[in-house]
Amino acid sequence: MKLRAIAEHIGAVLEGDGAIEIVGVSGVRDARVGELSFVANPRYAAAAAETRASAVIVPKDWNRPLPCALLRAEQPDAAFARAAALFTPPPCRPPPGVHPTALVASDARLGADICIGPFCVIESGAEIGERTMLYAQCYIGRETRIGPDSLIYPHVTIRERCRVGARAIIHSGVVIGADGFGYTEGPDGVREKIPQIGIVEIGDDVEIGANTTIDRARVGRTVIGNGVKIDNLVMIAHNVIIGDHAVIIAQAGIAGSSTIGSRAVLAGQAGISGHLTIGEGAIVGAQAGVSKNVPPGAFVFGYPAMPMEKYTRLHAYYQRLEEWHRRMGEIEKRLDRLEAQRG
Amino acid sequence: MKLRAIAEHIGAVLEGDGAIEIVGVSGVRDARVGELSFVANPRYAAAAAETRASAVIVPKDWNRPLPCALLRAEQPDAAFARAAALFTPPPCRPPPGVHPTALVASDARLGADICIGPFCVIESGAEIGERTMLYAQCYIGRETRIGPDSLIYPHVTIRERCRVGARAIIHSGVVIGADGFGYTEGPDGVREKIPQIGIVEIGDDVEIGANTTIDRARVGRTVIGNGVKIDNLVMIAHNVIIGDHAVIIAQAGIAGSSTIGSRAVLAGQAGISGHLTIGEGAIVGAQAGVSKNVPPGAFVFGYPAMPMEKYTRLHAYYQRLEEWHRRMGEIEKRLDRLEAQRG
Amino acid sequence: MKLRAIAEHIGAVLEGDGAIEIVGVSGVRDARVGELSFVANPRYAAAAAETRASAVIVPKDWNRPLPCALLRAEQPDAAFARAAALFTPPPCRPPPGVHPTALVASDARLGADICIGPFCVIESGAEIGERTMLYAQCYIGRETRIGPDSLIYPHVTIRERCRVGARAIIHSGVVIGADGFGYTEGPDGVREKIPQIGIVEIGDDVEIGANTTIDRARVGRTVIGNGVKIDNLVMIAHNVIIGDHAVIIAQAGIAGSSTIGSRAVLAGQAGISGHLTIGEGAIVGAQAGVSKNVPPGAFVFGYPAMPMEKYTRLHAYYQRLEEWHRRMGEIEKRLDRLEAQRG
Repeated sequence: MKLRAIAEHIGAVLEGDGAIEIVGVSGVRDARVGELSFVANPRYAAAAAETRASAVIVPKDWNRPLPCALLRAEQPDAAFARAAALFTPPPCRPPPGVHPTALVASDARLGADICIGPFCVIESGAEIGERTMLYAQCYIGRETRIGPDSLIYPHVTIRERCRVGARAIIHSGVVIGADGFGYTEGPDGVREKIPQIGIVEIGDDVEIGANTTIDRARVGRTVIGNGVKIDNLVMIAHNVIIGDHAVIIAQAGIAGSSTIGSRAVLAGQAGISGHLTIGEGAIVGAQAGVSKNVPPGAFVFGYPAMPMEKYTRLHAYYQRLEEWHRRMGEIEKRLDRLEAQRG
Repeated sequence: MKLRAIAEHIGAVLEGDGAIEIVGVSGVRDARVGELSFVANPRYAAAAAETRASAVIVPKDWNRPLPCALLRAEQPDAAFARAAALFTPPPCRPPPGVHPTALVASDARLGADICIGPFCVIESGAEIGERTMLYAQCYIGRETRIGPDSLIYPHVTIRERCRVGARAIIHSGVVIGADGFGYTEGPDGVREKIPQIGIVEIGDDVEIGANTTIDRARVGRTVIGNGVKIDNLVMIAHNVIIGDHAVIIAQAGIAGSSTIGSRAVLAGQAGISGHLTIGEGAIVGAQAGVSKNVPPGAFVFGYPAMPMEKYTRLHAYYQRLEEWHRRMGEIEKRLDRLEAQRG
Repeated sequence: MKLRAIAEHIGAVLEGDGAIEIVGVSGVRDARVGELSFVANPRYAAAAAETRASAVIVPKDWNRPLPCALLRAEQPDAAFARAAALFTPPPCRPPPGVHPTALVASDARLGADICIGPFCVIESGAEIGERTMLYAQCYIGRETRIGPDSLIYPHVTIRERCRVGARAIIHSGVVIGADGFGYTEGPDGVREKIPQIGIVEIGDDVEIGANTTIDRARVGRTVIGNGVKIDNLVMIAHNVIIGDHAVIIAQAGIAGSSTIGSRAVLAGQAGISGHLTIGEGAIVGAQAGVSKNVPPGAFVFGYPAMPMEKYTRLHAYYQRLEEWHRRMGEIEKRLDRLEAQRG
């Protein structure tokens, strides 16, 4: 494909030879002659300067020389994604229809043009929306409903009575609707299980990363809003409510009954205690431990989490403790001298 | 069901109209007319004041007005659990017997009234106790024994020669008996695997959350005591010993050969180094990093973990570092002045 | 087996009765008469002194009395591993060949002497090397290649076009090749998925622990070098590169596009931000949060991570904050007195 055609397709401004033939896409460091790459992050400027790519998508205001043609774009990563899609091998889809080894309950309702892969189990009363694809070895519990145009990778478990919206992407090993963690404790420390009879309700356009777990509510619903993106190995406990378009990065955990506001972002390995509210658009830094509510738009960090600005200030002082140790010793010596002179 | 009948069933004191018809249970915020809810935590007092529930279970000493009937109970959450059970849809059980697609080795021993779901694999010499239910797609390794009345959800893996007690509940994606992580390191940094030939032994009344992993011992046994409750995505390494009725919250990790005392509680994302002892009834706070033994009954917190009281004190000082910075500067100025006057 | 024969087999120096019959191996605390045990860590000296083992492997320079025969070895744990192998039950292998319930695409290439367990799915164009064994219920995506002599436990998912080298050991619940976590964000906070069209490439002699996830690259490759050992529940994001013989302990996470140097070690629950470089042979402590590059050979710790030596020093000062609080108050009182006298 000619570079000029790609530039037009992605809406980028071409600088260089538009007749170059592009045969694939790659990262700046890996790219070979004939490939298209991109730089969005200045950290990669040095790598870009040495790339063997035939063309690189750069920000509009890029001002360093590169050894190849340039495509200037407003959002280089988005532009690259559109370009990459031109060279992407067709996705590996399960064959259409219900695989002969899949077990689909006679009263399950299957939309038009679905695919159900081998060794899947679809329990009684479940409903799979039109054009939704289940890869091999998935489990869909009784009366669970999955919307249209969804993609469920192998080894996903969605237990009974849960609901998943349209255009979901659910990666392998995800478990939706396992029991919440709840017990009453007897005087002897022995615990009795509290039945977890609620469900999980997931909106439209949600993506859930590999081996993430979302527990069903004790009563009522654990809610994942529309457009929420969840990374791998995340823990979402019972009765959590996640607002629309929130982002939860890998290995973060949210304890029971907490609410995450719309468009909030929880970075990797962050932990949110139970019964808290994280405000709309708030950002929780990586590994932060949140033990009280976070106001809308705030950026918190640290353990326990505090406003980023405060964290940065305190941490700067923390790093001066050695200096302070010295200063405090000197102060005491000066005081000793002054007191001796006076005596 | 009449509210009066529910009050009697759960042993609560009724205040209000016992003739109200209750049709379901729900959280105070979600509840609709005709539903029963509860408040155990004062945090929800405001929400309870606005509930649309027809009745709310409250603590014995509750003294705020609510817009509905009250049921006073010693333990509102336990009472609610009992009430909820009255309205719970019958659990979704796999059909009794061995599903025709399940593969059960000819010398496996199956107790009476078991259920083995579709696409399960039960290897040679395995033993499944009476009334135990395996959902779809589980794997039970060679010579592994599972006690009676247990519930194993889809996609569980229990490898060879492990033992699970009676009344276990094992959620989807759990892996029991994978190899422990052990190598010898050559002088060149190349590692050679140490065979992990031990087992995992799990007591009675244990619940294990989704996608948790419990590794087999290098030699001997990794032990999970009776009544232990483990949440999702927990890591329990080889040769760990967990005492009876301990509780391990989501995403916590316990490194090899550590011992957790009876009734101890590890909060979410806590980490315990290897070869340590956490005393009976000790509590390890969320995200704490434990690098030395914890005495029985202690409550530790922080990174590295220290007694909660010490942590709280030090953290309060930490938050005053800015004030100290100012004070130290003033002290030095006052000293300068005193020294100048003296000079 | 006679103790003398074991001593010869493992290259240890015997002290005691070589005619003792050894019937098994065990940990020092669990061992019974007739069993062989070992002590590598001085922490276990007290336990070893009370062992009922008939013989214990000890370091060359061991100088405490033990109630049994000794085998002195250079590396007691490696020596014990070799001895344990003599008593290990033969590993539980799936039967040779392709299980009749497994689904293998007609154009998949299977090496000689492979085992493919029940309910496995091997997609079109996949390649399984000689003598490689897949346990039950595994999923191997289209055009994925797995090298010879590998061992894939039940419930493993390896998606399309990935590559795994020779002698891999992949534990249950592992997900290789799920989509990386990447979106472009619109001005309204709505995210659009960036296609993840790269692959995962894994070298030879790699072991991957249960429920670990390794995401495919956005473009290009996520790379796991030769001899890398990865523990359970680890998250490796898209485009990460892990150098040969690195070690990643349980629940650690590495964000996108970071590079881990050869022989580096990430301890449990450590987190590495994106786009960083961890130098060769560096060590990242447990729960550390790494937000900038780590030089080769460094040992970093803490949150945010800093050189261990600095961390230790600062933490020691931190623990003196209470003392400093007192000292600062006294300093101010002394200043008050001096100023009053002067006035």
